[in-house]
Amino acid sequence: MVSDRTWTAALVVIGDEILSGRTQDRNVAQVATWLNEQGIRLSEVRVVPDDLERIGEAVNALRSVHDYLFTTGGIGPTHDDITVDAIAAAFGVPVIVHPEARQILEDYYRGRPGGLTEARLRMARTPEGAELLANPYSGAPGIKMHNVYIMAGVPSITASMLEGLTGKLEGGRPMVSVTVGARAPESEVADLLRETEEAHPGVAIGSYPFFMDGGHGSNFVIRSEDAELARETGSDLAKRLRAAGFEPVEGGI
Amino acid sequence: MVSDRTWTAALVVIGDEILSGRTQDRNVAQVATWLNEQGIRLSEVRVVPDDLERIGEAVNALRSVHDYLFTTGGIGPTHDDITVDAIAAAFGVPVIVHPEARQILEDYYRGRPGGLTEARLRMARTPEGAELLANPYSGAPGIKMHNVYIMAGVPSITASMLEGLTGKLEGGRPMVSVTVGARAPESEVADLLRETEEAHPGVAIGSYPFFMDGGHGSNFVIRSEDAELARETGSDLAKRLRAAGFEPVEGGI
Repeated sequence: MVSDRTWTAALVVIGDEILSGRTQDRNVAQVATWLNEQGIRLSEVRVVPDDLERIGEAVNALRSVHDYLFTTGGIGPTHDDITVDAIAAAFGVPVIVHPEARQILEDYYRGRPGGLTEARLRMARTPEGAELLANPYSGAPGIKMHNVYIMAGVPSITASMLEGLTGKLEGGRPMVSVTVGARAPESEVADLLRETEEAHPGVAIGSYPFFMDGGHGSNFVIRSEDAELARETGSDLAKRLRAAGFEPVEGGI
Repeated sequence: MVSDRTWTAALVVIGDEILSGRTQDRNVAQVATWLNEQGIRLSEVRVVPDDLERIGEAVNALRSVHDYLFTTGGIGPTHDDITVDAIAAAFGVPVIVHPEARQILEDYYRGRPGGLTEARLRMARTPEGAELLANPYSGAPGIKMHNVYIMAGVPSITASMLEGLTGKLEGGRPMVSVTVGARAPESEVADLLRETEEAHPGVAIGSYPFFMDGGHGSNFVIRSEDAELARETGSDLAKRLRAAGFEPVEGGI
């Protein structure tokens, strides 16, 4: 369903491994891109440690001010997987073994070495009142608790859970972006950029500099919910860049 | 200076390009790793859009509860670079052109095409009362405002600013981590991991599963401020894994 209002989401990334620098996060970009395709704007991300209270604080601060809240990480079978406990506490409900999740795990581990051990059964635990999110990749489901979507930390499993949700969330219009690049130092086109943005109400232009082959360049990203307006602004910006002596590169460099 | 208490920092990543999914963030891992080497723990990250109010809210929420706050992004010469304005507003002080920063830019752009334009002079703006952070890479300095360290968004420039700060911040002991890997599904060693953690008070063990060459494996990361204790726990964990029939791989897989 497409509506005119702007739908927003926040993401809480749960994991000591991100905050220690050991693991490079891949979920922010992945969730952001997917949300935009659903017409939902990722509006804030918080990365918090594997700590019951800190997870709960972030979840409660964000779930009430956004349409959707996503979490990644901490739903596996080991002792450091405490996301379900933290979110149940944040909602003030107990943790239960979800009958449907237990059935999914029983089916998944039937015939697999070890079977459904107690550790694996941990992955059937949910806050009371939750629904499940399908995980075709590895059995253990994600969890939906009101507007909170609790997902895995391993990016390929997160991707699988997102795929299962595609088209199922209410959202508005995707943000369209048009990129124009130039081998121009951004400081030499700063005025031109500001003037272009001002001439096209309803767009935002971001400038992202880089250094390549011994020279400065920039990509200029025009964002708008109005695809036609974004394209028009892109053409106008290209014209202004050319007039200033810089060859515009459609699609960016 | 090394002290016994735990020093913490937060990081605010400023940028629509991260929240749109267009750009993969590289600064969280880089700042996290560098902070740990300084004996400072990265305790929370927030990613916020290029919005004055949202930047200010995050800065004010975090600067009072952590020893240090770092920000990345939004200090370039273009209209979308509003970090300085947002942080000045958060501190309730005006934005000034910092005389020393102006001098650095005058020297840097002397003889370079275009010279010190008005757009480039934007990069000499700071909140009133701020100090500068050296940037050997591209002239325009970072900014220190009380315990807030305002840095560039381009990772190589951030790296250069961090290098200039190395050894200059008061901190405690770095967190030491020892990694042991095994071709074991984490669900089959969950009890063993919990027991190992319980047997060594002062360590935390994280379990990070992966799927490779058609099989499940995991890396187990033991973290402690006590290097000797981390190593001992690593040896103990390796012994327990071997006893359970899994070959431990020191340093991880």
